[in-house]
Amino acid sequence: MADQYAHSGDDKRPTEIPAIRWEEPPEGPVLVLLDQTRLPAEEVELVCTDAPALVEAIRSLAVRGAPLLGIAGAYGVALAAVRGFDVDEAADALASARPTAVNLAVGVRRAQAAHEAALAKGGDVRQAAAAALAAARQLHREDAEASARMAAHGLALLDELLPAGGHRILTHCNTGSLVSGGEGTAFAVGLAAHRAGRLRRLWVDETRPLLQGARLTAYEAARSGMAYTLLTDNAAGSLFAAGEVDAVLIGADRITADGSVANKVGSYPLAVLARYHHVPFIVVAPVTTVDLDTPDGASIEVEQRAGHEVTELVAPQVPVAGSEAGGGIPVAPLGTTAYNPAFDVTPPELVTAIVTEEGVVSPVTAEGLAEVCARSPRAAD
Amino acid sequence: MADQYAHSGDDKRPTEIPAIRWEEPPEGPVLVLLDQTRLPAEEVELVCTDAPALVEAIRSLAVRGAPLLGIAGAYGVALAAVRGFDVDEAADALASARPTAVNLAVGVRRAQAAHEAALAKGGDVRQAAAAALAAARQLHREDAEASARMAAHGLALLDELLPAGGHRILTHCNTGSLVSGGEGTAFAVGLAAHRAGRLRRLWVDETRPLLQGARLTAYEAARSGMAYTLLTDNAAGSLFAAGEVDAVLIGADRITADGSVANKVGSYPLAVLARYHHVPFIVVAPVTTVDLDTPDGASIEVEQRAGHEVTELVAPQVPVAGSEAGGGIPVAPLGTTAYNPAFDVTPPELVTAIVTEEGVVSPVTAEGLAEVCARSPRAAD
Repeated sequence: MADQYAHSGDDKRPTEIPAIRWEEPPEGPVLVLLDQTRLPAEEVELVCTDAPALVEAIRSLAVRGAPLLGIAGAYGVALAAVRGFDVDEAADALASARPTAVNLAVGVRRAQAAHEAALAKGGDVRQAAAAALAAARQLHREDAEASARMAAHGLALLDELLPAGGHRILTHCNTGSLVSGGEGTAFAVGLAAHRAGRLRRLWVDETRPLLQGARLTAYEAARSGMAYTLLTDNAAGSLFAAGEVDAVLIGADRITADGSVANKVGSYPLAVLARYHHVPFIVVAPVTTVDLDTPDGASIEVEQRAGHEVTELVAPQVPVAGSEAGGGIPVAPLGTTAYNPAFDVTPPELVTAIVTEEGVVSPVTAEGLAEVCARSPRAAD
Repeated sequence: MADQYAHSGDDKRPTEIPAIRWEEPPEGPVLVLLDQTRLPAEEVELVCTDAPALVEAIRSLAVRGAPLLGIAGAYGVALAAVRGFDVDEAADALASARPTAVNLAVGVRRAQAAHEAALAKGGDVRQAAAAALAAARQLHREDAEASARMAAHGLALLDELLPAGGHRILTHCNTGSLVSGGEGTAFAVGLAAHRAGRLRRLWVDETRPLLQGARLTAYEAARSGMAYTLLTDNAAGSLFAAGEVDAVLIGADRITADGSVANKVGSYPLAVLARYHHVPFIVVAPVTTVDLDTPDGASIEVEQRAGHEVTELVAPQVPVAGSEAGGGIPVAPLGTTAYNPAFDVTPPELVTAIVTEEGVVSPVTAEGLAEVCARSPRAAD
């Protein structure tokens, strides 16, 4: 079951609404999610008291973003255990809520394994539930720590590459606290620069077709008090030509063994523009994003998404990313087919540096990547 | 006064609805416009019986596109003259309907001058009106002829650059018969390739923020039976990387004396991508677009448009381009500022060729441009 907390009016607005939090009110433990389908129009929290409510929140994209889905899945298992539901049944339902999200299943299985291990050691139901919750909290904490370390490494790199300060950073898609247990990846570096007084401007690509930049990154930048400006993705070229971009910072969906970076569609054109204009192109991602089993960019299968995301306009209140039918306002003639790849691949030679929580890989080589991964037990997950 | 002809249902749909046409039904002459604000959802024609109706149609963007506005303005003067209204008053109202559209004023003044010259030669009111109409028709015909000649030159160039045929052409914004007295500029070249059986695919950039590609180019491609596919502007990089683009064809808003090309924002990133992937980048524009008085790209003042075009989504039925207030669905947080340049500038070194009705300039040099302009009396307008 899910309830809603609505935040409206500045007087009632807390200084920060986390994307996810575990609460233990007198009525019993709950998992509270910021409903991302309502942003930026409304800040509404969903209160989940059982796993089915969380499954529904995951399916409707109220909670999204690879690392955050893993954390949510782990808390979902803990919720089922604490409230006395069937843990394995809850785990299976959660793990398959979005089958392509690897992190989700990994987080679910981690909490489930902790629960099983506690029972196997002779613990009672209460102790097993506590073990599942501890595993979820551990994953949450690890992700937040990884964010903080990426932010520190990234800021140091920016300061080295751009000693004059007053950084003007271009970013694409959404890589902040809405997709992470901490402050995110690329966005966290920008935020660290802001707090250090060295961010002059964050240029926010709107990120067509689903507008994660306009809807979510602008929301996070506004909340953080950063100087930011929104632009259509195709206007970035004018900024580069005018010398208004000092660095590009993006996240990654997957990094292959040779350092090829799969990320939200539109990243590769930025890499080409950055190279043409001699601007650093920096990828920020945890070591868990590095996939040493995939040799190179050519081996990545690019997900093609539904054409209606391009042929129809959709209000941000209406979640469409997961739905087959459109339901938006048609902008193209009926029958128009669209080419709609979810991400593109940037080859390592166009990437100035990959920033992980274990350090910076620059230049980007297979050896350098393997080395940072070897430093972390998380990379083996 | 404006009436409407509505076309709905395939059985009633004519094979081609021109963007503008002069008609002489028994009730008296009228100017009929295809209402571009309703495309592609509805094909509705506006029937103008006087200049004020045309002024309103221009202001609401029912008729748009530089060359087409010039033709509309000239016909508007003829309409006032034929129907016995004050010609100078009508001309002033038409010329200032959209003050930044140079072609509009040029077209208006050309018909007005023909009207005055006929009166000065002792002609009566009817003869002067006929002279104004003849001037409008002449402008219309010249524009159509220029389109046809650009298409022929452009197709010959494509065949020379891409002898294997099966052209896969990427285009940006709208450059077809909706902005021209003929079949347009870049789009006309693609159409010529289609008719010659040598177009494998037209890749249509949606062209944020106003979506002229999705709304208008896709509409024109569908009507012409071309094989076309729509994409978000930022997905073009993936097509280049996959080797799916054989040439880029775009129009131009202004070409400076050194061959710098100002065109719809998003053109420059395509030029950089085309260079990186060794793909020809071809600009198609009439000699009237060449501005020999502006020395280079740095001298062009780039128009910054209202931020709400980026921060709000607007249905195609609602014309927003000319309005100050938004009226759309907000997608970014309130208070978000946007960087929204109307066009960008591509330097001559990134342009493979400029195709005009007087011939092809390649490589793009100041001398070559001056030479094609010298071949045409139109360039001196």
